[in-house]
Amino acid sequence: MTNKTKKNPSFEIHSIGFVHSDEQQGCYEIKLYPRFITGLEKLEAFSHVIIFWWADQHDNPGDRSILTIQLPYAEGIRAGVFACRSEYRPNPIAMTVMPILNIDKENGIVTLPWIDAFNGSPVLDLKPYIPSSDRVRDFRVAEWMKAWPEWMEDAGAFFAENEVNFGN
Amino acid sequence: MTNKTKKNPSFEIHSIGFVHSDEQQGCYEIKLYPRFITGLEKLEAFSHVIIFWWADQHDNPGDRSILTIQLPYAEGIRAGVFACRSEYRPNPIAMTVMPILNIDKENGIVTLPWIDAFNGSPVLDLKPYIPSSDRVRDFRVAEWMKAWPEWMEDAGAFFAENEVNFGN
Repeated sequence: MTNKTKKNPSFEIHSIGFVHSDEQQGCYEIKLYPRFITGLEKLEAFSHVIIFWWADQHDNPGDRSILTIQLPYAEGIRAGVFACRSEYRPNPIAMTVMPILNIDKENGIVTLPWIDAFNGSPVLDLKPYIPSSDRVRDFRVAEWMKAWPEWMEDAGAFFAENEVNFGN
Repeated sequence: MTNKTKKNPSFEIHSIGFVHSDEQQGCYEIKLYPRFITGLEKLEAFSHVIIFWWADQHDNPGDRSILTIQLPYAEGIRAGVFACRSEYRPNPIAMTVMPILNIDKENGIVTLPWIDAFNGSPVLDLKPYIPSSDRVRDFRVAEWMKAWPEWMEDAGAFFAENEVNFGN
């Protein structure tokens, strides 16, 4: 079967919770719906979590058919949505890796230092960060982000000091 | 609004292509449906791609309500689905980071060295691996995977040499 004849199936996904963020208070949390809280068991064994969230503010009619983006941080560069992390994409699932500050298993709340999601964004999944799957030693990035840090830990300070327009 | 009163919304996602894998031939590819091929523009600027794929073989009735798993690789440990990478989860979206071997933009084919997906698994998204978002310097993993490699590059050899049961 080739990719020209096969149909593209669709699936239904459900949010498991939502992002609660309050920049004023410096509060960033994932709040799970009660029925999913059991799924947090043993997440405390990991330092970092990968959050899949739904970019619902980029899910208007037509948004999902956007396939290339003029990159706000790279003048004159137009990239495909699969070559950038734009929230405009056929399936607006965003992914953020963050340290875990606290897990409240009674109330289903995972506290983070920050997250680049809107307040109220639906959360679809949480996964532990596992270096043998997720941590790449030898990498190459695009020319337009050559100056960006090599480590997630250094990103906050870098982007605070350098004006990088992410278009938000 | 608390997590006890808020409803959990659902969303429709569409596959953008599928995994073509043939272990005998050593062939591992992502095949995009023609209408999405434009989205690959400039992906060649990156060494690694993050593949979101739908674990359709773990999407039978009841599978999505599984919230804890007896880990096949850690005797006596039962973990929440958000603390492991099991394909049983409320939204069976799997994530794999892989080096890009080749991109055929005419036919919409991204060639990989390997992927832990079934042949035919629907693909939902491709994202470039960006170290300032995705590469964690200082991490902590669970006791039961302390011996696992610190780098994705070392995982193949390690898991080939050591018997680790992933339950597949």
